[in-house]
Amino acid sequence: MSSASTLYQRVANRVLRLIEKGVYPAGRRLPSVRALSRRMRVSINTILGAYRWLEIRGFVEARPKSGHFVRARPQGPRPIPASLRENPVPVAVHKLIQEIVRNSSVPRLIPLGMAMVDPRLLPLARLNRILSSVARRMPELAHSYADPAGYEPLRTQIARLAADAGAEFGPDEIVVTSGAQEALHLALEVVCRPNDAVAVEVPVYYGVLQAIESLGLRAIEIPADALDGMNLDALRAVLKQYRPRAVVAMPTSHNPLGITMPESKKRELARILAHERVPLIEDDAASGLHFGPVRPSPAKAFDSQGLVMYCSSISKVLSPGLRVGWIACGRFRAEVEHRKTFRTSANATMPQLALAEYFEEGAFGRHLRSLRNILAGHVDLMSRAIRRSFPIGTQLSIPSGGFHLWVELPLGVNSLELYQLALRAGITIVPGPVFSPRGRFENHIRLSAGRWSAKEERAISDLGNLVRQMQCCGGSSSTMQM
Amino acid sequence: MSSASTLYQRVANRVLRLIEKGVYPAGRRLPSVRALSRRMRVSINTILGAYRWLEIRGFVEARPKSGHFVRARPQGPRPIPASLRENPVPVAVHKLIQEIVRNSSVPRLIPLGMAMVDPRLLPLARLNRILSSVARRMPELAHSYADPAGYEPLRTQIARLAADAGAEFGPDEIVVTSGAQEALHLALEVVCRPNDAVAVEVPVYYGVLQAIESLGLRAIEIPADALDGMNLDALRAVLKQYRPRAVVAMPTSHNPLGITMPESKKRELARILAHERVPLIEDDAASGLHFGPVRPSPAKAFDSQGLVMYCSSISKVLSPGLRVGWIACGRFRAEVEHRKTFRTSANATMPQLALAEYFEEGAFGRHLRSLRNILAGHVDLMSRAIRRSFPIGTQLSIPSGGFHLWVELPLGVNSLELYQLALRAGITIVPGPVFSPRGRFENHIRLSAGRWSAKEERAISDLGNLVRQMQCCGGSSSTMQM
Repeated sequence: MSSASTLYQRVANRVLRLIEKGVYPAGRRLPSVRALSRRMRVSINTILGAYRWLEIRGFVEARPKSGHFVRARPQGPRPIPASLRENPVPVAVHKLIQEIVRNSSVPRLIPLGMAMVDPRLLPLARLNRILSSVARRMPELAHSYADPAGYEPLRTQIARLAADAGAEFGPDEIVVTSGAQEALHLALEVVCRPNDAVAVEVPVYYGVLQAIESLGLRAIEIPADALDGMNLDALRAVLKQYRPRAVVAMPTSHNPLGITMPESKKRELARILAHERVPLIEDDAASGLHFGPVRPSPAKAFDSQGLVMYCSSISKVLSPGLRVGWIACGRFRAEVEHRKTFRTSANATMPQLALAEYFEEGAFGRHLRSLRNILAGHVDLMSRAIRRSFPIGTQLSIPSGGFHLWVELPLGVNSLELYQLALRAGITIVPGPVFSPRGRFENHIRLSAGRWSAKEERAISDLGNLVRQMQCCGGSSSTMQM
Repeated sequence: MSSASTLYQRVANRVLRLIEKGVYPAGRRLPSVRALSRRMRVSINTILGAYRWLEIRGFVEARPKSGHFVRARPQGPRPIPASLRENPVPVAVHKLIQEIVRNSSVPRLIPLGMAMVDPRLLPLARLNRILSSVARRMPELAHSYADPAGYEPLRTQIARLAADAGAEFGPDEIVVTSGAQEALHLALEVVCRPNDAVAVEVPVYYGVLQAIESLGLRAIEIPADALDGMNLDALRAVLKQYRPRAVVAMPTSHNPLGITMPESKKRELARILAHERVPLIEDDAASGLHFGPVRPSPAKAFDSQGLVMYCSSISKVLSPGLRVGWIACGRFRAEVEHRKTFRTSANATMPQLALAEYFEEGAFGRHLRSLRNILAGHVDLMSRAIRRSFPIGTQLSIPSGGFHLWVELPLGVNSLELYQLALRAGITIVPGPVFSPRGRFENHIRLSAGRWSAKEERAISDLGNLVRQMQCCGGSSSTMQM
């Protein structure tokens, strides 16, 4: 993918490295467009493109008539303390999540809570043509049971895509699933027995908590740092104290934080767990939606022992409705396949045939580039709208991928109350407590920018007003912050 | 459905009732075609059609120049003793079943072991046209997440079809699943906790055993009588002694026996379990494939307490590859829905949209009538071929629906050995021990007549030769039987 990135992206990346190395610290003015154009021997327009790219992603701020400035980081929500460690707890989030999921698809509601990309951004016409063609050309195959592990040509394409991202595994290591959700379930199911403890980074995608609850497991929280994901010191301590049966992490374009663990940290994560012989269940559901110019390698790329179970899907980038995901199972391949087979026989066949052809065509890379640029734009626009509409004391994540924003509301604003008020105002959001087995993040919400238009912009403004109203009627501390 | 049955089917049914009432006992000659035509005031051709219909289904035997005779029943395999009761046991069948399932789809093998109907008998062209049309007309809906419980118009159609068969439940009681297999899993999952005991009739469809094994449950065997299914005295004793958490039964067109419980017995089964407050998990995977003129009501029709969880699918009658099944959950609706949702989010959307339209069109009833007549013919032809090719001492089930034959081989012929020999000869069969949690039925096999052609006929002949060879090389008792 990196070879296909455009010139301005490469320039942006060079600048970004200089920022990250501290050459240009927070608050510092960057070289003028003209100066940088001369220095890097590229056109003015290329530099303008690069600065705009950095601006959209929250690295740089353009101040009228003054130039471009490095933005202070972290501006993200306060991380939960790295020292936080408590006993594993059973999980009981399902009722609230079920209600939230159901509301997310009510057509009259504006779905800021829905983890779904605007379908108009997806190549549905192309997928539909292939589906029709496959059904016409191979009717008997398309309506027969598929290979229990998944249609072999599809598994080959999945392995090829993963290799492009630096993770090398063969088609034989893959089992095709009903989305990443079933993949996570299967992964937990094969390595855990009821009542086992599983370590998760918090905030954690609520689907992981649903799986843990369904399987009767207990969760241990490991705090995620706001900049680079799971705190590894906390991980080490948890491993030592509780010997969890598995660790679940989303190291790339994290849901809900949007952050990506640096490659060196992913390597260290894989190394620690291999040393302790604890499986890592890697959720890469936002695979391909990185905002940076280079596709990040998953932690699976550093799996020396077959202990990383890599879960991903097409739900965020092609079609949620086809229900195709996969798991690269490492050493747990046989067990995953038999559990998948026994439960559902196999995934639906026709979507697998069609996807194999779609990937084979080679248009997927172009689609992904276009999609992630659009989503980066959505995230930028939503971030700006939030900054305009929400009261002082609100903190925003700065995603490096995906399309979620993690919003810390001023202290005292209860996100479950806000969820109810927003619902009455025709807007869905996801309240923070469903992202923690202990119901933390009371004053956080997740907002999703899978769609962006005047309607969503108004909804953000309405939400901001609701938060302000809650502050006025709420405790004194939040009013003071105004 | 019954109103649409043809005249000869209604005549056949009248004769069948007289046979069942003992008016014409086994071995008795039936009235001549001419006499019955006069008595019933229908044409000679109608009587000929009715007798042929009864002959195909094994009720009547035509003897050249002598007329039609009632066949002796039971000719089925010996039932296992009704007194048989032993402690619940953990189940471990998955390795063998997985191998069998994998071999079933190897193209060069003749799949007598595969529970799948010849795709040429399915309305695939029509389904494909609807799929393409749905994708074209509703691309965004077709690629979005479906309602977690299933697409509402599809659930309405499913409820309508069930009402036609006498089982009345609303769309709201239904959750759409990935085939009946996932439905069975969900049903077991919501009522059992690990290590709980579940009662199953034996022989039992191995998918049930897979689910029991996956969930870490234990199985108790209840023998099925060869003529009318689960022995209710044995059930009562098991309920009293072991208090199983649930009972799994397939009372209609049983897999592998092919038998159907009489309605009165289904009513009694539902009554016993309601009285004991034990849920009945009803597997109706062969729904619509009854050979008789009247569609049998499922046990769900007699569910007064919401304790029957009714599982069915389109896999045997329309398309296995679309992976659509359902469960009418009774009082367990909320729990089933949340477990389904948490595991896979929802079923694939497009197949649900297409099926709802296909059912709405109303061609399904015609298709089913045609399909079950063809399958009844297949079963008849396969039965005759087995009688021609297999040695004396072989006993055959007499199915009243579906497309499986349960074959008891002469004593001493080991079906696992036969499975291996057949595989080398290019034929798949399913050995008996996978139909029992205790590995019973060593000298039984299941053969499936979903396809029938000269190729399958040759395969039956080859199988018969293998069995004869095994007898010659085997114990003396089997040689004596020759």
